[in-house]
Parts: sequence; structure tokens; C-alpha cells
Amino acid sequence: MSITFQVIARCGAARAGEIKTERGIVKTPAFMPVGTQATVKAMTPEELKEMGVDIILSNTYHLYLRPGTEIIAQAGGLHNFMHWDGPILTDSGGFQVFSLSPLRRIDEEGVTFRSHHDGSSHFFSPEKAVEVQNILGSDIIMPLDHVVPYPCSYEETREAMERTIRWAERSKKAHHYIKKQALFAIIQGGIYEDLREICAQELVKMDFPGYSIGGLSVGEPKEQMYHLLDVTVPHLPEERPRYLMGVGSADALIEGVRRGVDLFDCVLPTRIARNGRVMVSQGYLTLRNAEFARDFRPIDPQCSCYVCRNYSRAYIRHLLKANEILGVRLTTYHNLYFLKRFMEKIRMTIIENTFPQFYNEFWVQFSYLPQDGE
Amino acid sequence: MSITFQVIARCGAARAGEIKTERGIVKTPAFMPVGTQATVKAMTPEELKEMGVDIILSNTYHLYLRPGTEIIAQAGGLHNFMHWDGPILTDSGGFQVFSLSPLRRIDEEGVTFRSHHDGSSHFFSPEKAVEVQNILGSDIIMPLDHVVPYPCSYEETREAMERTIRWAERSKKAHHYIKKQALFAIIQGGIYEDLREICAQELVKMDFPGYSIGGLSVGEPKEQMYHLLDVTVPHLPEERPRYLMGVGSADALIEGVRRGVDLFDCVLPTRIARNGRVMVSQGYLTLRNAEFARDFRPIDPQCSCYVCRNYSRAYIRHLLKANEILGVRLTTYHNLYFLKRFMEKIRMTIIENTFPQFYNEFWVQFSYLPQDGE
Repeated sequence: MSITFQVIARCGAARAGEIKTERGIVKTPAFMPVGTQATVKAMTPEELKEMGVDIILSNTYHLYLRPGTEIIAQAGGLHNFMHWDGPILTDSGGFQVFSLSPLRRIDEEGVTFRSHHDGSSHFFSPEKAVEVQNILGSDIIMPLDHVVPYPCSYEETREAMERTIRWAERSKKAHHYIKKQALFAIIQGGIYEDLREICAQELVKMDFPGYSIGGLSVGEPKEQMYHLLDVTVPHLPEERPRYLMGVGSADALIEGVRRGVDLFDCVLPTRIARNGRVMVSQGYLTLRNAEFARDFRPIDPQCSCYVCRNYSRAYIRHLLKANEILGVRLTTYHNLYFLKRFMEKIRMTIIENTFPQFYNEFWVQFSYLPQDGE
Repeated sequence: MSITFQVIARCGAARAGEIKTERGIVKTPAFMPVGTQATVKAMTPEELKEMGVDIILSNTYHLYLRPGTEIIAQAGGLHNFMHWDGPILTDSGGFQVFSLSPLRRIDEEGVTFRSHHDGSSHFFSPEKAVEVQNILGSDIIMPLDHVVPYPCSYEETREAMERTIRWAERSKKAHHYIKKQALFAIIQGGIYEDLREICAQELVKMDFPGYSIGGLSVGEPKEQMYHLLDVTVPHLPEERPRYLMGVGSADALIEGVRRGVDLFDCVLPTRIARNGRVMVSQGYLTLRNAEFARDFRPIDPQCSCYVCRNYSRAYIRHLLKANEILGVRLTTYHNLYFLKRFMEKIRMTIIENTFPQFYNEFWVQFSYLPQDGE
């Protein structure tokens, strides 16, 4: 087996577990920082390790276009290229093709798309997406999926979902000869309960080492996403990790875990950091605001990260207003550390069987809800 | 005395020394990284310490305008505000007023200038520049000086030089009650040998704890700058540190040391890093160039810095092309480390009395000469 997964504790539907990979153990539930272009924006690998990050995510679509698969192959794979020796999960490019590429044509064979850099034309089949990820050498890989926008008609969603199942089967066939990488399946089906259920059931029959839930957090209300998790997760096997794609706000993370999800990723913490927004127990602070000009407290007085131990809101605000790179470094570091600690606390309360109390306390404190986004 | 300076070795005109400040020892000759806006661009204070940086420079003009003196006072001074507990030298703002401010009016009293941020009007007198730096709490401070552009007529240069002397005297009077900060004098006089000599002689009579050589590296040929150093330095007392402002290329550093200079600063290493240019023994590499796309060697195979130990030229080029912050972090780190090691080597060869050989070897290897700039 490419990876092994063990649930070590349960509290309601929530689980604490361990994914063992050749490159290290991922303690779940876990949030995966996103390194779209072979770097978690503004961070070094050492800083991620210092925070305790077990696994990061990177993007097949982006790396295929730039610097190109061949250069990463010559570098000895993605880990060598980017100097990160821990586990990496790569997305297949399905979501990116549908969200970033200006022109695309999809048929049963695959998807033809244009590069968002230079307009050049490219073709991804399920086999090609697996092949590229084989070369990247990531530890967990995703099959090419057909993502529909929100909103989308039932019929169109159904067709895309069925194609996603056929493509998962082709991906599995293309992949089986590589032993070290775990190929997950991606469940689609839009906002339609029965489509989500069918997709989950069909993919589970094929027995993948893990199941991703894709096509959510794309604009639908959060309550609808939670409901679709309620509908989907019960069809997934207990002994396999579950990964909710594109979710990274504290509120959606805790709701996902509560419904039995083990893995998450999102650009949210790093993206809002670049806009000067930071995560605190009560929600978010926008550090560029004038109210922080003379606020000499740390970002979050309850946080013990490098940033909160050494810098004031006033100083970080000054850096952000002056467009200094250090400002973005500090907000990014804090947000990733904040989510790492948040997931650790969730995990501990699951193990100690006090997750419901933690969940209730979270919602007493937490107020502001921005929109997630993959 | 606010600081003490000791020459511990000489080799020709070159000196190795130690400046003792309340916040630590500065081993000279030293290059000071520039933290214009209370941050050495893209670096943390810990990274600077890791490289062995003894002292950094910051800018009165920039900090006075943003975040403003009052906020830094409330933070407990510049060191607290920016989380750097080593020595800081602040420039007076003279150079910045003349190079950055869109409108300015100068008279004997001082200089009225407009903010380059919002166009607001401000007035700096020699007394005000000292007062602001007293509040910043830097360890070595500069008096307000009258900087002339290059080229500039003899008469205009002479008037500005004489005013600079009068302002140095006023600065000294305004400053004497603060014990911990060392107020240097700045020698002006443009490209005119006799003006440089007169300025040096007059300022030395006033007995400052250190002497800066300003108004060079502003567009004149490097040979002319070296010649003016030859003319100026002999008038400066042996027992006081000498600081050549705005110089930071390896070639100009070694030529400055050879002529008896102890301190240097320049935005060059950090600025070119943001454009993807890195320093190597032979000169410079422009990492954005296509030739580095598949170059898996470190920036400088002879360098043992964090960047050269862990990353390839190909990866850093990818980061720079993708506008990733980590790219600029890595190039900046390398350049500052490179200059720190370069100055250490120079110091060691002065102590070992082998500086002339080192100087000759440097010029055998080194080829490309970009323009410095303050």
C-alpha cells in the first residue's frame, strides 16, 4: 500500500487519525498549506516545519505550465526541486483548468485548455494528469475531474459527475504501476444530494486509498456545503482518509471535522495574509486599518507563534502600509501557525472526547465569516 | 563617550577595528544592510543575526514620514518597534530630502520639503533631525547635511559644503545632552578636492566620534570617487571610524577599505536581489535569464549560506519568474550573506597582513561592475 491510514480516536463523526507516507506521518485532522507554484507563498520549508506542518499541497496545473514537468524531473522531482522533504499532495489540475484557463474544450478523452500565462494550447487526459504527477513524485495524487461551476443545472452536473467516475477508473488504470504514490478519487455531484451519493458509492466500489470531496466551497452557502457533507460522508469507508478540497476558514474546518473529514486545503490563510488579514480566536483582524496604528499588542495575545512573541500590530501595520515583504511574511506565518494549532486542538479534543465542548466554545467566540475559496 | 573605536590592525591604509556601542560590537570594516522603513527588505532580524550582521542602517526621513516619530516613541524606540536589538545607524534625512522629495526649499535655517507619499509639507532643521533621531534611539546618528546633485558647479558645491559645516556645529549643540548616541559629522564637497579637504579639516576640528563621507556614489565615475577618498581620508583622525555612505558593491567596498574606510551602507545588495541579481565571486548573475532554467547548481558553489546549501539556480529562477516572495527572500539572503563574508575575509586579511594579495586575487576574478547608489 502506498499510504496507510489509521483512525486512533472518534468523537461522534469526528476522527483523529494518522496517515503514514514514505516521507512522514500526517496527523489528522490536518489543514494542508497550499504551495501552488512549488512554494507556500512567502514561507521557507523550515518555517513550515517549525510550525509543525506535516503535509503541503501543490498544483499539477501550475507546475506543468511553469517551470514545466521536464525541469522538475531533471531536479529529481518536486521535493528536491523545492527543498521540502515531507509529504506533498498534488491536485490534478481539474479545478484549475476550469477556473483559471481562459478557453477550454472538454470531451470524453480529456480537456484542451489554454495557458493563463501565454495562451498556449495544452491537453490533459486522465492518463496525462497521472503521468505528470508520477513525474512530480508527490505522495498523494488526484485524478483529473470534471468540475462544474456554481450554479449549474442538474443535467450538466450529472454528466460531469459520471465523466469524473469514468476518468477516475482510467486514472487508476494509468497509475497502478507506481507503488509509492496514493491515488485518491474525487467525488463530484455539485449541490445535488443524489448525485453526490451516487458518485461516492461508485467510487468507493473501486477501492481508492482515500476520497476527496471536490466542487464545494465554490460559491454555494456554507450551510449547503455542510448539508452535502452530511449526505456524502456516510457513504465513505471508515478506514480511508477523507479530504475536503478548498476549505480553510476556522469555522468551515471545525464543521468539516465534525462531519468526519480528515484533510483540508485552501489558499485562504496565505491569501488573506497578503491583504493584511490575520486570524484570531474571534475571527479576523484587518491590520491595515487605522485602528491598529498605535496598537502595540501582538496579533493574537493568546498565540505563541514567532510573530506574536516578537512583533506588534502597529509594526506589522506599518510594514503592510509600506508594502514591505516582511509584513506579508509575518501575517502569513501567523495565519498558518494559527490554523496548525487550531487543528491540533481539535485533534486533542477528539482524542480526549471533549470535541463537542470545544466546538461549542469555538462558536461562542467566533463571529466573522469570510468566504472560502479553493 | 557614546561609542568607542579601536583600530586593532593595519595593512597599508586599510584598518581592522572594533566599534563598541551600548548594543554590541561592530567589527570593521563592515557593510551595513539598509532597513529604510524599519525593516531590511524581506529579512527578519533573526536572519540578519544568523548571517552575522553587527549593525544595520535606517532612515530618519522615511520613519519620520511613516509611521511617524510619535508611534516609534510610543513603541519604546526604533529597536523595540522593529525587534532588532543590535546597533542601528540612522541617516539624517539630508540625502533623502534632496533625492526623494518632489519640492524643497532650502535656507540657512533648514529645509522645507514635501512628503513623497502624500505631498504634505514638512520642515527639517539640523536641530529637528537630531531631535527625531534622539527619539528613534539609534546608536549612531547623522547630522542634517546639504547634498548637491552630480554634476554641480564649484560655487554651489562650496556653499552647500559650508552650510553642511555650520549645520554640523548646530547639530552638535542640539545633541550634546544625549549620552548614548554617537553623532558623526558628514563631509561634503562634491567632486572638488579642495572643498573635500576644507570640509574634512573643519569638521575634524570640532571633534566628532566618527566621520561620514557623503555625496559620493551619486553618479560620478568610480575612479573619481576613489580619488576623492585618497584626498579626503588623510585628513581624518586615525582613532575615529570613517563611513563611506551609499557604497555596497564588492569592488567599491574593497577599494574603500584599501583607502582607510571602516563602514559602508547601500541598498544595492537588497535592491538588485529584488530584480533577481545575485552576487558571486566573479561579479553578478541575473537569475531571471533563460540560461539558468536548468542550472541545478547553487547560486555560488563557493558559498555556504542557507540558500546555497538548499536551493538551485533553476528553482530560484522559477520563483522569480512566478513572482513568488520566496524568490526575493532567497536572493536577498544570499547577497547580504555574501557581502558579510566578503567583509569578514577583508578584515581577516588585514589582521593577517595579507590584504594586498587578497585585493589582487579579487581583481583577477571580478569582472562586471554595476552602478552603486545610495
